[in-house]
Amino acid sequence: MSSKDGFSWTKAQGLKPGVPCIGAISPPSNLSTHDSTFDVIVVGAGYCGLTAARDASIAGLKVLLIEARDRIGGRSWSSNIDGYPYEMGGTWVYWGQPNIWREIARYGMQDELEVSYDFSRGINKYLLVTPEGTQRFSHDEEDELMQKGLEKLVNVDGCGGRETVVFPHSAKLGPAAAKYDRMSVADRLAEIQNDLTPNERLCVEAFVLLCSGGTLETTSFYEFLHWWALSGYTYQGCIEYLVKYKFRGGQSSFAIRFFQEALATGNLKYSFSSPVASIKSGPTGVEVTARQGQKYRALKMISAIPLNVLNDVTFDPPLAPGKKAAADIGHVNQCVKVHAEVLDKDLRSMTSISYPHNKLSYGFGDGTTPAGNTHIVAFGGQHNHFHPEEDIQQTISAFQGFAPMQIQRLVFHNWSKDEFAKGAWFFSRPGLLVDHLNDMRANHGNIVFACSDWALGWRSFIDGAIEEGGRAAMTVRAGLADRARL
Amino acid sequence: MSSKDGFSWTKAQGLKPGVPCIGAISPPSNLSTHDSTFDVIVVGAGYCGLTAARDASIAGLKVLLIEARDRIGGRSWSSNIDGYPYEMGGTWVYWGQPNIWREIARYGMQDELEVSYDFSRGINKYLLVTPEGTQRFSHDEEDELMQKGLEKLVNVDGCGGRETVVFPHSAKLGPAAAKYDRMSVADRLAEIQNDLTPNERLCVEAFVLLCSGGTLETTSFYEFLHWWALSGYTYQGCIEYLVKYKFRGGQSSFAIRFFQEALATGNLKYSFSSPVASIKSGPTGVEVTARQGQKYRALKMISAIPLNVLNDVTFDPPLAPGKKAAADIGHVNQCVKVHAEVLDKDLRSMTSISYPHNKLSYGFGDGTTPAGNTHIVAFGGQHNHFHPEEDIQQTISAFQGFAPMQIQRLVFHNWSKDEFAKGAWFFSRPGLLVDHLNDMRANHGNIVFACSDWALGWRSFIDGAIEEGGRAAMTVRAGLADRARL
Repeated sequence: MSSKDGFSWTKAQGLKPGVPCIGAISPPSNLSTHDSTFDVIVVGAGYCGLTAARDASIAGLKVLLIEARDRIGGRSWSSNIDGYPYEMGGTWVYWGQPNIWREIARYGMQDELEVSYDFSRGINKYLLVTPEGTQRFSHDEEDELMQKGLEKLVNVDGCGGRETVVFPHSAKLGPAAAKYDRMSVADRLAEIQNDLTPNERLCVEAFVLLCSGGTLETTSFYEFLHWWALSGYTYQGCIEYLVKYKFRGGQSSFAIRFFQEALATGNLKYSFSSPVASIKSGPTGVEVTARQGQKYRALKMISAIPLNVLNDVTFDPPLAPGKKAAADIGHVNQCVKVHAEVLDKDLRSMTSISYPHNKLSYGFGDGTTPAGNTHIVAFGGQHNHFHPEEDIQQTISAFQGFAPMQIQRLVFHNWSKDEFAKGAWFFSRPGLLVDHLNDMRANHGNIVFACSDWALGWRSFIDGAIEEGGRAAMTVRAGLADRARL
Repeated sequence: MSSKDGFSWTKAQGLKPGVPCIGAISPPSNLSTHDSTFDVIVVGAGYCGLTAARDASIAGLKVLLIEARDRIGGRSWSSNIDGYPYEMGGTWVYWGQPNIWREIARYGMQDELEVSYDFSRGINKYLLVTPEGTQRFSHDEEDELMQKGLEKLVNVDGCGGRETVVFPHSAKLGPAAAKYDRMSVADRLAEIQNDLTPNERLCVEAFVLLCSGGTLETTSFYEFLHWWALSGYTYQGCIEYLVKYKFRGGQSSFAIRFFQEALATGNLKYSFSSPVASIKSGPTGVEVTARQGQKYRALKMISAIPLNVLNDVTFDPPLAPGKKAAADIGHVNQCVKVHAEVLDKDLRSMTSISYPHNKLSYGFGDGTTPAGNTHIVAFGGQHNHFHPEEDIQQTISAFQGFAPMQIQRLVFHNWSKDEFAKGAWFFSRPGLLVDHLNDMRANHGNIVFACSDWALGWRSFIDGAIEEGGRAAMTVRAGLADRARL
């Protein structure tokens, strides 16, 4: 199976749109001509929509899942090439992420994880590349540099953030959010500019931009504090929670379990490659119109549409002003994530920051391919934005900006040009959360809005998507139970 | 509502069996005379059975929940006295515990937690009491002492256990288990006896016994390593995961949500105060006979009966030899947990170990009661076992063994004399896990055995109970779907 999404490049084949994907669904629909009325329509088949559709169909509701793409997974999917997965979006998971781990345990996938890093062989170095040249550090020195720098960034309370974000899963945005969400990371860096060594500053800036995919000016300092708190208030925690453990079979091997479980109930109808044009919510239910013209009706709807594309769907009645304002503002993450298969075995144990000049600022060894080559994953973002498919030579050069390497293959998804995402995972610009988090979470008539973009705990993560999908299904079930009692 | 379980004592009223409980269910049954056949019977209404019954009833199965006690919650329940909860068993929760946090988020209870400790006022000291007298430390010194001592205990790999138990949620017992589950903590302490200072040794022994409720000789070293790994390989992690955050409204305020959600489906029948005498499993289903003689039939059964009382139910056909052997061996936890309401406001910030002579070895300030008094919780176990209701003066003296205090009230549940538990949370004796974990987890005809006692991740914890309940419901659903296809 293949998806139209994503790109691959090899010297032999050049640039090709579309990549193999075990999460591509064929045939694209199981609807019959008489299927037009449902208990609930779920729009969006990322982890949030998948969870909502699965939970609702297990609970006996007649569910229609509509998805614009030809595949499940939304912003988290893998392209498995020669059996080896390249993660196009959301990748890493951890047993401290409650919603995702509950699912991993439930599907018995606890032993299907592997560690991205392998520091047992090769150069085993951290390369800090600046316009002035390359400094080489051990990974222990890297950890110390990162921990020291980040600790200075977050230490607004003398306790490394511990007394500032005390309950990172709280449903309330407390005083810390009120204060620090209006502040950008650039503002915070200005406060501590005399405390950071030049290397600490480079590391901190590159790490924050890896998280936000924005610029220092557009990155909410509170949202970064929130990530820090979620990760246990340490850099080591950040590594464990954010970038260490991934599925041996790729994200799509996990997502497909949700889809298959929902399908096995017999209650799930679906339609892929079917973008939604408009959504009408009335007193008795919801009518969803696809761009191709089909109309579907249901008592309830769950919108798992990401924030940055919410305005591309017409809502009748229109979205409430607060929700509309949030969609107008959008999130700032324009992450550029590119995979390279390279001949250089030694680079398996490389980690590197190449900043601020390089198009890709963060890169590290992420695996060994079936051919025995090294898999390097690299990240850029709004700070120095580019479209990797537009100039392959430039993309190759951006990898060479970490260290010399012989690139055999590139694999990536351009999230910025993706019309159904218009960006990568959510990251808040200053003020968006305090002004609009509750707006983003609010229902609209018979529509529940559910998305990782406004989750309470692991917002922006797969975990938050599952959190939101579960909440949405439960809300819809409760709403329909009320109706039954009338 | 009250439960027959538990005891309270005040000077005015003396010892009284039975305590208030919002998890007591009245009337005890909603069965009608014609209810005798179900899709699934769940035996046991602790968190595992509640989760299984809830998930199965949401999925549309006709469920009967049978419970020996008059209340939900099993080994985790609170007695709310004057609105203030005393936790009789399982107490603390954390957002790094995936299954429990998924439920807390799902029920929107993220902001219903509070911190047990309050070091802002009073003596703010750690008292280490031995037969030789009392040493007084700051809490920072306490943390350092505990971290240093425990680090020596677990440091079998030069990495604080990190390379020994790498995936603490793994379904496989790896080489570490094979090696260290045969070793008791006493064996391990013998290996490092020259490395520990006398104070470190006291702290380590008391902490391990707090975890296991057994003796050093009967406590599996691997199981302790597993707790350590689950808690992030640090003493600070142990505090956060194990003894810091609890429900403001008590555990029963959480458990009741599962029960109510199941009930709202219309698919749940239940019978409390109804101990099961025997269970017969045949090719077409299961027949459960209550001690009072009622018989119930179902296609499938979920046994959430704890290990230590599994042999008190007659199974036909008999349990497989491995499962029977595990039940014969049993777990070793004979924790004695007692609450005291005391006049001494200063003790709110006390933590203390009184060991090895004292009947209660671990005690600390756990809250402030509505009367403004201090709530102290204390723990003993098999090491120096006693029955708190048999000699109240001895129980009061055991509290005085931490520091002088004026006791107004005692509240506790005697888990050792509880015929439906015969002990507290699971803790493995050496060899039990490697020899029998898979036996304990195995199905038996149409019966799925699910219990926190043999969970894979947070085994022994509420989290593990929910993990197991979810697994059981999913297994039963899959089994019934297969049957439908025949």
